[in-house]
Amino acid sequence: VLGAMAAERALAMATCTAPVNIAVIKYWGKRDTDLILPINSSLSVTLHQDQLKTTTTAAASRDFTEDRLWLNGAEVDVGHPRVQACLREGEQPPHSPGGGASLILTPPHCPVPAVRRLARKRRGGSEDAATLSLLSYKVHIASENNFPTAAGLASSAAGYACLVSALARLYGVEDELSEVARRGSGSACRSMWGGFVQWQRGERPDGTDSLAHQVAPETHWPELRVLVLVVSGQKKPVASTAGMQTSVETSPLLKHRAEVVVPERLAQMIRHIRERDFEGFGQLAMRDSNQFHATCLDTFPPIFYLSDLSRHIIALAHRYNAHHRHTKVAYTFDAGPNAVIFTLADTVDEFVEVVRRSFPPATNGDQFVQGLPVGSAALPQELVAAVVTEPVRGAVQYILHTKPGPGPQLVDDPSQHLLGADGLPRYRA
Amino acid sequence: VLGAMAAERALAMATCTAPVNIAVIKYWGKRDTDLILPINSSLSVTLHQDQLKTTTTAAASRDFTEDRLWLNGAEVDVGHPRVQACLREGEQPPHSPGGGASLILTPPHCPVPAVRRLARKRRGGSEDAATLSLLSYKVHIASENNFPTAAGLASSAAGYACLVSALARLYGVEDELSEVARRGSGSACRSMWGGFVQWQRGERPDGTDSLAHQVAPETHWPELRVLVLVVSGQKKPVASTAGMQTSVETSPLLKHRAEVVVPERLAQMIRHIRERDFEGFGQLAMRDSNQFHATCLDTFPPIFYLSDLSRHIIALAHRYNAHHRHTKVAYTFDAGPNAVIFTLADTVDEFVEVVRRSFPPATNGDQFVQGLPVGSAALPQELVAAVVTEPVRGAVQYILHTKPGPGPQLVDDPSQHLLGADGLPRYRA
Repeated sequence: VLGAMAAERALAMATCTAPVNIAVIKYWGKRDTDLILPINSSLSVTLHQDQLKTTTTAAASRDFTEDRLWLNGAEVDVGHPRVQACLREGEQPPHSPGGGASLILTPPHCPVPAVRRLARKRRGGSEDAATLSLLSYKVHIASENNFPTAAGLASSAAGYACLVSALARLYGVEDELSEVARRGSGSACRSMWGGFVQWQRGERPDGTDSLAHQVAPETHWPELRVLVLVVSGQKKPVASTAGMQTSVETSPLLKHRAEVVVPERLAQMIRHIRERDFEGFGQLAMRDSNQFHATCLDTFPPIFYLSDLSRHIIALAHRYNAHHRHTKVAYTFDAGPNAVIFTLADTVDEFVEVVRRSFPPATNGDQFVQGLPVGSAALPQELVAAVVTEPVRGAVQYILHTKPGPGPQLVDDPSQHLLGADGLPRYRA
Repeated sequence: VLGAMAAERALAMATCTAPVNIAVIKYWGKRDTDLILPINSSLSVTLHQDQLKTTTTAAASRDFTEDRLWLNGAEVDVGHPRVQACLREGEQPPHSPGGGASLILTPPHCPVPAVRRLARKRRGGSEDAATLSLLSYKVHIASENNFPTAAGLASSAAGYACLVSALARLYGVEDELSEVARRGSGSACRSMWGGFVQWQRGERPDGTDSLAHQVAPETHWPELRVLVLVVSGQKKPVASTAGMQTSVETSPLLKHRAEVVVPERLAQMIRHIRERDFEGFGQLAMRDSNQFHATCLDTFPPIFYLSDLSRHIIALAHRYNAHHRHTKVAYTFDAGPNAVIFTLADTVDEFVEVVRRSFPPATNGDQFVQGLPVGSAALPQELVAAVVTEPVRGAVQYILHTKPGPGPQLVDDPSQHLLGADGLPRYRA
């Protein structure tokens, strides 16, 4: 115990997990690229961490001689100026467009200095020597995802939300942290909450009112389910950070969307969620996804995230809903090729079978459905005839079945830290 | 001659040709579906009839016992209620959505009664017995295109413009005819003029000010060229008549486009044309094509006319322009898969070679370029490296090279009539 106490002084460590979120009223475009202030409010559903999560361990020690960072077990060159500039405090290196694919510490949006500043502010008066010295130590950070990066599900939102949560724990900060997470990656602020989350645009130029808050917890709508259709043969799409600023500069339709359409839709969407009205929720989610992609197409040069396969999936969803004469499934697409389907628990088995028939697995298919259990379903012949047209083999790699889930979690069990007592990753790539 | 005179009394006949037009400020959406009044003004380039034209012969005779219609040599069943209702006068049968693919006489938009009414009005006072009896005769109409229907180039605009022109000649009407053509198919009014043509939205509820007029004649910009990239494996897309009304009903972005964006763009486009400013003209044509397709995507359920191949062509054009550091080619896409490229004469040879390298012909390629002559071009290696990425064999069926051309033409030579002295087609399918 004495040894542990000594180690505790010498090495402070905190581990958190954080979720992915999927927007149903989309964020696209910043009014301030340094502070990451959006041109419109957005609303998302936080996905359950049992299926998709990032885990991050942050450690500080007087024994660390340099800042170090590991992503999915592989060390990122900390000598790289971008990483260095991020980890050091007070610097404002030139802004470079981020990738958005995973946790990439792009200055000036690195949360490390921001959380340190919050910690100093908190403790300003008091003389907590332990914390003050902790703040002067070098940090080791390790972060990993419980899903394959190649699937295009890697989320900078989960990555930054997790980093901010772990650092805040490390330094004992208990402030509202969505503003800090937002400065890492805009949509990361929505991953700071579970359930149904609104990111309010805010009005102030300093961004202090551009925050995320919970509209309803994950327990509010127990029947809601999410199917992620992971698409095969993904290419690297246009980076969203660069893409959205081109849209802001060139799309007249995006301006109208942000100023006029989104405020109305946001209020409607909150109402649909409060009333657990799937018809309204699903219809509006589809319309808003389509409108986001419409503004990408109105960008010059145009940006395309939807492919012929996306169109296949969209048409399939509309045929399925038309067959049932109401909205049973709703698609939404972000700045990548995967489709996310919202549905209710009683529809999952049948719709998964419809997807399996429409996009028959290329291999034997025993890994075709992952995540929450899916039962088998026999499709009525008239449903098959009306809905399953022109199957495309192998186009969907697998389906991930999940549901809304909670916000970032503290990992109490020390055996779950990604860093060992020596401050190095327990598992290397 | 005497026989001819007798025949002339017994059989009156007129033949006209009319052009296809391609919009650079797009028309999408009606504010009045019966009168075909658009929600916004539009602007098009009339294509030369040497490459793309419709020819129509209209005949009236006291000997005809029924109205008859031949399209591309095949008789259309005149017993069909839609055709009958169209040819008869004064009827207002229930509106049904038209195909838009070729000349289809859809009531209540058939120009025959409308031109007859104009003829009566003109002659109202005078006692021209010959014309009055002509108006009481049954009509035979034959219409054909000088391009394959399967190529997706068949144009209801050329078809209706030609029918109206031939009927007006038959009955001796010399009025402004774009309003009559408009009621056949909206964009047909623009095919009533050559060169650069604006269709003014108009304000009046009766549509009498919703007319086409010429912005500049085809001789105004002699260097301007048009390349139609005819795409292989075409499927029947969503019919534009039905599609555009769904857009009017469901797309908030279309409303904004029509009310705010188009009025500004129309004035800009006219300026670019007047100044023969290809940079401005091409950029705006591309932006407006993209915005039209954006509003299709914002429609619910969404409408897709652009495919992965369209995206390939769009990306190719942007790479080509980027390589040359200014706008050398400009794409525009209508409600179908073919791409139309605007360029200047000095760029044609090189860009055609770029297209040939990017979409190598599936066969030996001797019919790959049609229409106006295209010279050979050796592509600099750095151009190939920068622009020709991932060739897709056989995706483009052929390229049609054409240029702006004149409006409808009267065919004086009687040997060119599509109907013989017996009132029947000279050539049958």
